[in-house]
Amino acid sequence: MAEVTIEKIKELREKTGAGLNDCKKALEEAKGDMEKAFDYLREKGIASAAKKSLRTAKEGIIFSYIHSNEKLGVLLEINCETDFVARTEDFKELAKDVAMQIAAMNPIYIKREDVPNEVIEKEKEIYRAQLKDSKKPENVIEKIINGKLEKYFSEVCLLEQQFVKDDKKTIDSLIKEKISKLGENIVVRRFVRFVVGENI
Amino acid sequence: MAEVTIEKIKELREKTGAGLNDCKKALEEAKGDMEKAFDYLREKGIASAAKKSLRTAKEGIIFSYIHSNEKLGVLLEINCETDFVARTEDFKELAKDVAMQIAAMNPIYIKREDVPNEVIEKEKEIYRAQLKDSKKPENVIEKIINGKLEKYFSEVCLLEQQFVKDDKKTIDSLIKEKISKLGENIVVRRFVRFVVGENI
Repeated sequence: MAEVTIEKIKELREKTGAGLNDCKKALEEAKGDMEKAFDYLREKGIASAAKKSLRTAKEGIIFSYIHSNEKLGVLLEINCETDFVARTEDFKELAKDVAMQIAAMNPIYIKREDVPNEVIEKEKEIYRAQLKDSKKPENVIEKIINGKLEKYFSEVCLLEQQFVKDDKKTIDSLIKEKISKLGENIVVRRFVRFVVGENI
Repeated sequence: MAEVTIEKIKELREKTGAGLNDCKKALEEAKGDMEKAFDYLREKGIASAAKKSLRTAKEGIIFSYIHSNEKLGVLLEINCETDFVARTEDFKELAKDVAMQIAAMNPIYIKREDVPNEVIEKEKEIYRAQLKDSKKPENVIEKIINGKLEKYFSEVCLLEQQFVKDDKKTIDSLIKEKISKLGENIVVRRFVRFVVGENI
């Protein structure tokens, strides 16, 4: 049985808007399982489905960039620690640079840790197939594959891409500059990029 | 073995930017499997990973709405049949109304056909649990459950929601009005809604 902690009770309260006692009872009934506790509150009519989105303490802004032809758009969440920093021109400038980067360079992931293992394995297979007639020794082939994989990450991961407005920086280093200037941690949390008519 | 049709060859060409002959050969090698044909072209160095997004013939625009506090944003793709209609003020007005509706009313799906079966079954279970002490006959309970489900669809499906600017219309009827005014089919293709700090 998972423990019913104060943290869980608070989280359920934020999630549902229900009172502390109801949340405690729901978690006890659900043996500490958050999803089940939520369902319990709904069954009792205490929580409504509409309040399901859970808020965390993160600050920041939602920023959008729409290309002038209106055929391409980006939506971005970028986080910092305080609303004070979120409202600065410096922070908004960074949001705009990152959104335009995503529009121009079409990254798929934020960082390399987000690339699924299957995708990495499939990339490696493709590189290996490209090299299969090269007659190079296996250790050389491994090195070439790793080099190609690094290049792949630098193409598909936003933070590793070269900044389109200054190719001496990566997006990661652009963000780090702002972190040291503004004195707060800054994180690109999520983005989407829509193109009219593309396959989804 | 799946057939290698002209349509598939054209699709692969649009997807990869490779020549018609290369696409035909790739599809033959891959026995008509689109994914495998794509990998084949990549192995041969003919297609690059970057060109993977497949375009279809759909027209329309990408529209964004950012709430004035910059803590909430919506990105929307809305399609029509010609670029001529996509550029009209009428079409853009519809895009704006729909984006603001999504911002205000937080739909989860576009239409009821998009709601997964598991979600519907779970909703029904919750309604049933709410009614279990009601001592009503089973056929009455079924009717109440169906009524609650209809209400659920009208809350979570964009097209079934009441239009925030005129509650005598649904979003579906708002779109149908534009379809008859502009003389082209109009489809809300996809949307996302980001709120700063919400759990994802």
